[in-house]
Amino acid sequence: MSAVVSEAPSATTTGLREGAFGHATALACRECGHQVDLGPFYACPECFGPLEIAYDFPAVTREEIEAGPANIWRYKALLPVPTDIESSPNTEPGFTRLLEADNLARELGIAKVWVKDDSTNPTNSFKDRVVACALSAARELDAKVFACPSTGNLANAVAAAGARAGIKTVVFIPSNLEKPKQVNSAIFTENLVAVDGNYDDVNKLASEIAGEEEGGAFVNVNVRPYYAEGSKTLGYEIAEQLGWRLPDQVVIPVASGSQLTKVDKAFQELIKLGLVEEKPYRIFGAQAEGCGPVATAYKAGVDAIRPVKPDTIAKSLAIGNPADGIYVLDIARRTGGAVEEVTDEEIRAGIVLLARTEGIFTETAGGTTVAVTKKLVETGQLDPTLETVVINTGHGLKTLDAVSDQVSAAATIAPTYAAFKSAGIV
Amino acid sequence: MSAVVSEAPSATTTGLREGAFGHATALACRECGHQVDLGPFYACPECFGPLEIAYDFPAVTREEIEAGPANIWRYKALLPVPTDIESSPNTEPGFTRLLEADNLARELGIAKVWVKDDSTNPTNSFKDRVVACALSAARELDAKVFACPSTGNLANAVAAAGARAGIKTVVFIPSNLEKPKQVNSAIFTENLVAVDGNYDDVNKLASEIAGEEEGGAFVNVNVRPYYAEGSKTLGYEIAEQLGWRLPDQVVIPVASGSQLTKVDKAFQELIKLGLVEEKPYRIFGAQAEGCGPVATAYKAGVDAIRPVKPDTIAKSLAIGNPADGIYVLDIARRTGGAVEEVTDEEIRAGIVLLARTEGIFTETAGGTTVAVTKKLVETGQLDPTLETVVINTGHGLKTLDAVSDQVSAAATIAPTYAAFKSAGIV
Ligand SMILES: Cc1ncc(COP(=O)(O)O)c(C=O)c1O
Ligand SMILES: Cc1ncc(COP(=O)(O)O)c(C=O)c1O
Ligand SMILES: [Zn+2]
Ligand SMILES: [Zn+2]
Repeated sequence: MSAVVSEAPSATTTGLREGAFGHATALACRECGHQVDLGPFYACPECFGPLEIAYDFPAVTREEIEAGPANIWRYKALLPVPTDIESSPNTEPGFTRLLEADNLARELGIAKVWVKDDSTNPTNSFKDRVVACALSAARELDAKVFACPSTGNLANAVAAAGARAGIKTVVFIPSNLEKPKQVNSAIFTENLVAVDGNYDDVNKLASEIAGEEEGGAFVNVNVRPYYAEGSKTLGYEIAEQLGWRLPDQVVIPVASGSQLTKVDKAFQELIKLGLVEEKPYRIFGAQAEGCGPVATAYKAGVDAIRPVKPDTIAKSLAIGNPADGIYVLDIARRTGGAVEEVTDEEIRAGIVLLARTEGIFTETAGGTTVAVTKKLVETGQLDPTLETVVINTGHGLKTLDAVSDQVSAAATIAPTYAAFKSAGIV
Repeated sequence: MSAVVSEAPSATTTGLREGAFGHATALACRECGHQVDLGPFYACPECFGPLEIAYDFPAVTREEIEAGPANIWRYKALLPVPTDIESSPNTEPGFTRLLEADNLARELGIAKVWVKDDSTNPTNSFKDRVVACALSAARELDAKVFACPSTGNLANAVAAAGARAGIKTVVFIPSNLEKPKQVNSAIFTENLVAVDGNYDDVNKLASEIAGEEEGGAFVNVNVRPYYAEGSKTLGYEIAEQLGWRLPDQVVIPVASGSQLTKVDKAFQELIKLGLVEEKPYRIFGAQAEGCGPVATAYKAGVDAIRPVKPDTIAKSLAIGNPADGIYVLDIARRTGGAVEEVTDEEIRAGIVLLARTEGIFTETAGGTTVAVTKKLVETGQLDPTLETVVINTGHGLKTLDAVSDQVSAAATIAPTYAAFKSAGIV
């Protein structure tokens, strides 16, 4: 078969097995609609717009989905994966908790809040979802190396999934990344490459390598169309776990903007498939002030996004030049949502707030999402009378230093009852 | 109602609502069989043996269980919790992945291996299961404070569950505990108490406080009978996820020994309820050499366990005086299993082995379990032709320092293709 790396297809991709991509039929340009055959392609040969998966969905019922496994493969009919996907080794991510968050709701002054908690995924972020879909594509395309540029979580997910699947992995991260995220990749792969630069530098390097080397599946570069579809499962799960209905409002963190875009796509597909009733919903994006290019464009009322040099503790969101930023703007505006940004101080407070109210330890990305939700209420952008889902995409153990100065033991005592009483705890 | 703290009941516990403990009927002494009424009691008034929950189970079908939620409450009919348990705020733990581990099996030379991965629980250890059951008991017994002595993971689980439930928490840990585990408690509670001493000192102090103070539910002290039942869900899930059948062999880490004991109890209950076919199975216990009192007794062929002073990197397993150690010995001998121990070096290698083969990052306890499994094969104690389940009870992000010197980036490079090529990665 052809090399896995290619910006645009020359002809029909050959060598694919029947049903390699499930009910996917083609790759369609998000900008001009031009279609190309399924393959390792990501940019439109006509206009260089991003390619997305086009499907011919079968009739799918709620019952069929509910009879599936307690992971993302329950939605396999709606993903670019083969029907026997469960039988190839993968990390089996998804179907994470949707928690009714009454304590958080009270603190935020919102009538009803749910937290979708993706910190309990196999490598503790939502990235396990997208990587599982990218792994399937890499396998079907016969890739020899499974790779990515990453702000941290993606590298963890790629390295783990590759280890389990028995495929060579190479993951690229900014060299100043938090130590837990570095170890959490190095434990799985021999090929963690630290790059002196920020994520945008790492991403540029990875694209160059993807263009030069053959046989590499860079999950968020040349197999990005397949990869990105994995985030739809967050939207599917929220709807299913709410009892097959859409929420009124959702708040989602934004780095490249892919996840937010795909949650919207998932809601649209569920409506079209008749799996939920059509209703209005609002989608909100969350960024850090130290890297808020989409929030800036939203507030300025412009369509173009001006890249920034990131400087924030929310390193997982530190993408200064977000590939799907313009689609995030689109969706926020179309649905009546917004894109907001918060300071590092607010992010830290967001982490502590979620922990103290709901017993969930999130990373800086989740702190951003919680803090933005608070700010959206305070600024009147989010309707506090409407049911709101906040997506927690990552785990606090990976960004421990962000809060380790904020919380500590109440006391260190000798092992005696007298010492305990003197400490004045109860 | 009576004070929550009491070693033995004086009379019938009053003030309990109907069905507060589900189908539980009494507390029965594990040693002499003497029964007492359900309440905040843990020691037999006749012989000071440990009290366990006695039930009058209803007929339960596989279908009823399968129709339940994707968490431990699918087994609520078999736990000491009310039928409306899902409606009180809790962390919704359990129904974690059971992964077919072919790569690990190959490395270990075992025909078939499964990993039950409890690192993806809400606070990333199996302790969320037991704590959810203890929380229910604390609530039904109207406790004012939710507390525990802990080797780390239990404190994380208690602090998180208490935050979500809106009950005051106080958690006690050895002051030399790993930093991630300290932060992972302090993030949830204002009352993390570090005690200068080892776990056995902390445990003794907690028992004293439980005896002196009223209204405190110490999950693993005075509500221990309810708490411990939570570990049965690990056994139930393994059987259900195998397609409603028991495995041939299971390897389980041992600190107090409670978990191992309850997995055996779960298997026995499933047989009695007709939910699985009766068959022989072997249960193996895993300890660290630096704290192997049960392994030592097993090897010596004696019934009594001599307490030790722990000195191992497996801090979560560092209980020198294990409450349920004698029952572990019993079960290992009765089922044809064994209790084995490994060095800190082997534990580290076990962590890396699980990561590189299956993409699971475990903590030192899991490293112990994997390393013991390896040793059991090498010493001919575990039958490599039989299907074996290895339980991973915790998360590597909590014991990062145990491996952070062992794994690292392959290279740190400038963000250029030339620099990448010079690094010789591909
Ligand atoms: C924890 C976490 N949340 C959110 C995001 C944002 O994802 P996206 O790039 O799809 O916008 C990332 C991306 O790395 C992440 O790691
Ligand atoms: C990760 C982990 N595994 C296993 C155990 C052992 O549990 P038990 O005390 O039930 O033997 C513990 C106890 O703290 C633990 O934290
Ligand atoms: Zn185009
Ligand atoms: Zn007794």
